[in-house]
Amino acid sequence: MVEIRRDLHMNPELSFQEQRTPAFIAKYLKDLGIEVQTNVGDGGVVGTLRGGKPGKTIALRADFDALPIEDEKEVPFKSQVPGVMHACGHDIHTAALLVTAKVLIGMKEEIPGTVVFLHQHAEELAPGGAKAMVEDGCLDGVDEVYGAHVEVNFPVGQIAVNDGYVQASSDAFDITIHGKGGHGAEPHRSVDPLVIGSHLVVDLQHIVSRRVDPLKPALITIGAFNSGDAHNIIPDKAFLKGTARTYDQDVRRQVEDELKLIVRHTAEKYRAKIDVDFTHGYISLYNHPKETAFIKERSEEIVGKDNVVIKPPDMGGEDFAYYVDKVPGSFFWVGGGNPEIDAIYPHHHPKFDVDEKSMLLTGKVFASAVLNS
Amino acid sequence: MVEIRRDLHMNPELSFQEQRTPAFIAKYLKDLGIEVQTNVGDGGVVGTLRGGKPGKTIALRADFDALPIEDEKEVPFKSQVPGVMHACGHDIHTAALLVTAKVLIGMKEEIPGTVVFLHQHAEELAPGGAKAMVEDGCLDGVDEVYGAHVEVNFPVGQIAVNDGYVQASSDAFDITIHGKGGHGAEPHRSVDPLVIGSHLVVDLQHIVSRRVDPLKPALITIGAFNSGDAHNIIPDKAFLKGTARTYDQDVRRQVEDELKLIVRHTAEKYRAKIDVDFTHGYISLYNHPKETAFIKERSEEIVGKDNVVIKPPDMGGEDFAYYVDKVPGSFFWVGGGNPEIDAIYPHHHPKFDVDEKSMLLTGKVFASAVLNS
Amino acid sequence: MVEIRRDLHMNPELSFQEQRTPAFIAKYLKDLGIEVQTNVGDGGVVGTLRGGKPGKTIALRADFDALPIEDEKEVPFKSQVPGVMHACGHDIHTAALLVTAKVLIGMKEEIPGTVVFLHQHAEELAPGGAKAMVEDGCLDGVDEVYGAHVEVNFPVGQIAVNDGYVQASSDAFDITIHGKGGHGAEPHRSVDPLVIGSHLVVDLQHIVSRRVDPLKPALITIGAFNSGDAHNIIPDKAFLKGTARTYDQDVRRQVEDELKLIVRHTAEKYRAKIDVDFTHGYISLYNHPKETAFIKERSEEIVGKDNVVIKPPDMGGEDFAYYVDKVPGSFFWVGGGNPEIDAIYPHHHPKFDVDEKSMLLTGKVFASAVLNS
Amino acid sequence: MVEIRRDLHMNPELSFQEQRTPAFIAKYLKDLGIEVQTNVGDGGVVGTLRGGKPGKTIALRADFDALPIEDEKEVPFKSQVPGVMHACGHDIHTAALLVTAKVLIGMKEEIPGTVVFLHQHAEELAPGGAKAMVEDGCLDGVDEVYGAHVEVNFPVGQIAVNDGYVQASSDAFDITIHGKGGHGAEPHRSVDPLVIGSHLVVDLQHIVSRRVDPLKPALITIGAFNSGDAHNIIPDKAFLKGTARTYDQDVRRQVEDELKLIVRHTAEKYRAKIDVDFTHGYISLYNHPKETAFIKERSEEIVGKDNVVIKPPDMGGEDFAYYVDKVPGSFFWVGGGNPEIDAIYPHHHPKFDVDEKSMLLTGKVFASAVLNS
Repeated sequence: MVEIRRDLHMNPELSFQEQRTPAFIAKYLKDLGIEVQTNVGDGGVVGTLRGGKPGKTIALRADFDALPIEDEKEVPFKSQVPGVMHACGHDIHTAALLVTAKVLIGMKEEIPGTVVFLHQHAEELAPGGAKAMVEDGCLDGVDEVYGAHVEVNFPVGQIAVNDGYVQASSDAFDITIHGKGGHGAEPHRSVDPLVIGSHLVVDLQHIVSRRVDPLKPALITIGAFNSGDAHNIIPDKAFLKGTARTYDQDVRRQVEDELKLIVRHTAEKYRAKIDVDFTHGYISLYNHPKETAFIKERSEEIVGKDNVVIKPPDMGGEDFAYYVDKVPGSFFWVGGGNPEIDAIYPHHHPKFDVDEKSMLLTGKVFASAVLNS
Repeated sequence: MVEIRRDLHMNPELSFQEQRTPAFIAKYLKDLGIEVQTNVGDGGVVGTLRGGKPGKTIALRADFDALPIEDEKEVPFKSQVPGVMHACGHDIHTAALLVTAKVLIGMKEEIPGTVVFLHQHAEELAPGGAKAMVEDGCLDGVDEVYGAHVEVNFPVGQIAVNDGYVQASSDAFDITIHGKGGHGAEPHRSVDPLVIGSHLVVDLQHIVSRRVDPLKPALITIGAFNSGDAHNIIPDKAFLKGTARTYDQDVRRQVEDELKLIVRHTAEKYRAKIDVDFTHGYISLYNHPKETAFIKERSEEIVGKDNVVIKPPDMGGEDFAYYVDKVPGSFFWVGGGNPEIDAIYPHHHPKFDVDEKSMLLTGKVFASAVLNS
Repeated sequence: MVEIRRDLHMNPELSFQEQRTPAFIAKYLKDLGIEVQTNVGDGGVVGTLRGGKPGKTIALRADFDALPIEDEKEVPFKSQVPGVMHACGHDIHTAALLVTAKVLIGMKEEIPGTVVFLHQHAEELAPGGAKAMVEDGCLDGVDEVYGAHVEVNFPVGQIAVNDGYVQASSDAFDITIHGKGGHGAEPHRSVDPLVIGSHLVVDLQHIVSRRVDPLKPALITIGAFNSGDAHNIIPDKAFLKGTARTYDQDVRRQVEDELKLIVRHTAEKYRAKIDVDFTHGYISLYNHPKETAFIKERSEEIVGKDNVVIKPPDMGGEDFAYYVDKVPGSFFWVGGGNPEIDAIYPHHHPKFDVDEKSMLLTGKVFASAVLNS
Repeated sequence: MVEIRRDLHMNPELSFQEQRTPAFIAKYLKDLGIEVQTNVGDGGVVGTLRGGKPGKTIALRADFDALPIEDEKEVPFKSQVPGVMHACGHDIHTAALLVTAKVLIGMKEEIPGTVVFLHQHAEELAPGGAKAMVEDGCLDGVDEVYGAHVEVNFPVGQIAVNDGYVQASSDAFDITIHGKGGHGAEPHRSVDPLVIGSHLVVDLQHIVSRRVDPLKPALITIGAFNSGDAHNIIPDKAFLKGTARTYDQDVRRQVEDELKLIVRHTAEKYRAKIDVDFTHGYISLYNHPKETAFIKERSEEIVGKDNVVIKPPDMGGEDFAYYVDKVPGSFFWVGGGNPEIDAIYPHHHPKFDVDEKSMLLTGKVFASAVLNS
């Protein structure tokens, strides 16, 4: 398992550009004698293992893409690809699932029902691989779906679960304000996009503070505001970028509608023209209560009751959401933090690393889920 | 006169980097037999011509620096220096004043009093040459001071005058907001400098709209707002640049005080740190009524009553302000626009040009001012 | 039970002014042979019934104050007190609990442990009666506490439960902006409290939209803004009133701190003085999971599984919060809506009424809780 | 003159309700033998005196209405009408003009041309008397018009003049924001007019700070903002009142247009409905340069050069504007301040008073203007 993970770690591939990794996965599964479909949803690999006993069809998912980050760790298995790195642990997920397949094939006859291995490309970049794989039928006949994420914020040895909404839908928007530039001494001959943009940012706060149900999480972050570069020139344009995140899908639509409404009337109010380009990202991730309780039991069996904790929901995104939008399932987190081996850096950090024991635990929960289904 | 102007036009020099131009001027004046001081205020050239009759001491000023603009005109006397150009007519001013000296030396005996020729460097770049020249004593013993600007917005043949405040003081400021960056999904762990900057821009409007006497012109333009570049990352910092312009010097101080007060409490209100770097530019230009009336009379004599018009005041800046802050005087504008020779582009435009007849008219007003003083 | 309820309904008493009601309750309980304490927390009545078997001590709470609303129902038991009315169902709660006591006394020997009857005054008006009763020791020796609210938004026959935070803490604030009035034509001689107040309202949105964890509910509503009354006079003062509501008590403190910080620096930013008077209301109501599951079971026993529903959390307040802050417990809602008898008006409406069968169901859940503890 | 003034002072009449005062004036003029027209523009009195020599027709104006203020002075000629007072000196103006008529009739033969005495009602209340009188023909055949105002801010003995714009046009507006009220805990079910109103007040600052030429005076004051009265109820409506003042009539139209544009899109941006009722008040007062120079000369003749000062322009209003909008003329200010007789309180103050010598000086300037026309 460690070998596979380190091989993947040294050969990371960016989202939607994966070639070597899916080929490696497909070969590994085929060599095990597992039935394999490639290019599922244009990049995913799906393996199917039929057990010796009757039972449900359980899908297990691992994502395999990497990030555009330069690896700064000093380890023998450091990334060999300049500027690309497994800085979010997808190598861990993939290795864990491949070895789970190997273990399960060895006890094939005892498996009730069918196991579907979902090796997914492109989790890091919208629109992501999950949506396409689901549309391509990867969940056909599947009864339940499970996925895991190694998580450096929990110590190795812990597993974290939670039901209900646990991660947010995440949309991106680009706003271009077309004003009319001019000399800074003549505001009346200009339409000042910088002041208009500032009003817009202030006004957009109104959506979260007054328009949305205070009990339904929502946030709008403007991550970029760029306009002008001289002291005394009124610029022509202002450029803003941001993200809108919610749990509830009605609130998601409401936020988009309100944002567009505010933009439109801010433009007209100040005699500017404003374009909004609103891009839908992942939907929010909802863990089904029954399947989460099942994963909690499996985890308690493996790491003990005291080591299974509640993961507080957050406003991050994860395209596992598309699987559980289709069939019941649950996404869980496997602790990978360990100060002794310097596994202390946050996800997406150039020095990110995790304790490889987390792989073993991930595999054990997956296998237990299959055997107890 | 045309020859001098074209020579200067082909050899423009940036503010505070003038070498050839002041040397040329000094030589020209010396060759005429005029007493010359160089390096006045670290870059200016001052000539003194004592007339044959008793009378007042009249100073005449022309600025001689050029701008960092690429000359795009198709003329034989196009700038020979890449990226540097006389795009504001200072070559015209200089040539006009040099030839005025030549004419006056020819009628020296009839001149009442003394004429001081102020050839000034660095008008385009704060802190400018005028302040330094005044501090260096260039106005010692001077009774009145006059200056002219060729102006493409008036047709050649017209002269424009006005008394009272005609151009603004102009200060520049740089604001750096130090927030605390973070993931766009976690605003509560960050201090968002982009939203704080937007509030600041909105709040600064209060100064002009509510704090300043509505009868005393004031404006604050924020010319640049730059913060962040990703959709979902809260940036660490926001950078703003702007200009503050007023006529009245009490209002100028008030605007600076209010701006700093608003910045300080905006920082503390939102738990950020904000630095302001406030740089004083030129003071406002006040044309003395009596001296303006005198120039108006001189101009009417030369171009006729119908061709002398009122120049509306504006919020631009001009460091001639420092001369009239010290002794009475007036600044006037000599029309240079002429569609027939394509003299239609605004000042600071790469195709800017003026009708050279404006030089002659400038010289005539200067000479008449001296002879009628 | 109906008789008691109607008697109470005809004789409503305002919060902190209750005399007849607690006397009636005390007499009723004493007549049953229950040990009674009066004036608990300055207005509450506590009855104690020791059962014949060993067991836990279970407290049951009903509130008994009424509202300053004119009863507009046309019923024989209409309020006899002008301008005062049981428009929130506290008469129902009280009658239900009294009859529960009567039923329980009849089966005293079978009761495991002790039952404490908490008849609480002043639920409708901060600081409320619950806090004072708890401080006066009404929960000493109590193991669990339960309370119910009749709820017209659920049909009679249903019972609603939920665990975790279900109602908000609720604080009130009064803001006075001291500006400097003057003629509308001279803003520069004034400090305009109306514009300052407007900026303040806009700035306060920042707390909910950017400062608070988006996953922790919080809201700030400004309910009143009053400043000036003439077109052309800048007023001296602006008066604002509002409410701040949260679930998490750290967020509660954060909202108060941020609000005061923004107020302070808004004052200094615009050279005004601003006073804030911040009054803490009830804490948020947290239903303990285990005790809520217990009430759910009891309710399912009585109305059937299909008639027990989840009550979504809301941002309203309820001082039952103080009991469950001290000992484990749960608050539940008993459906009282019935269009056939016109029980359709919202709580606090002059025509509010509920189906009296809700009383019986309340009593049954209470009794079952005692007997199954 | 003093007697007339004190009689008027004891018998003040509110704008548009004047009865006794115009009757008194008409009688006084008729008794002098002056041709009189009453009810000019529905309330004014116009006297015409034809001089013995040929010449221009000069109109002199005095206003005669009083204010709804309780007189708090302790003087024998204190107002006899409760709640009504000559707190702006119109009694002074009237007495001065009546006695001027008396003096001029005595020297009728020497008068070149014709004198028109414009005794105007309702200066204090829009739409004012001037507009109606002009429309009714009071300036037909008039060549020049002059008017004066006693001014407590200048000491008695001084006269103040200025040309160009000296007082502002003044419009009033009423804004009603129709939101949707609700419980303070449910902002998402409401449209909050209080927050919308606050945004509107902040956004309106943009007009003066960014839309209007910084060299053209403009101001918008919101004098009233009233919305809601409870801490936790979102109100249904917000009511705002304000004044907009400018000099330039294009800017006046621009301010109205921008205000309406901002209101409209603020409404749509936040899903509210907003009504604006915009009422045009007086136009701005422009003193003609030539006629102002003439009054300056007359004043210097009477009080000496040193006692004629420049009155800085302000943003107050005066309906004398309508006369000079029609024919050339000038409005001037006659000092009335005198601490020795407690003439120190500002105009419209309950203790306002002026030195009566100001009447004599007003009359002298008027007479001199006629005789030197």
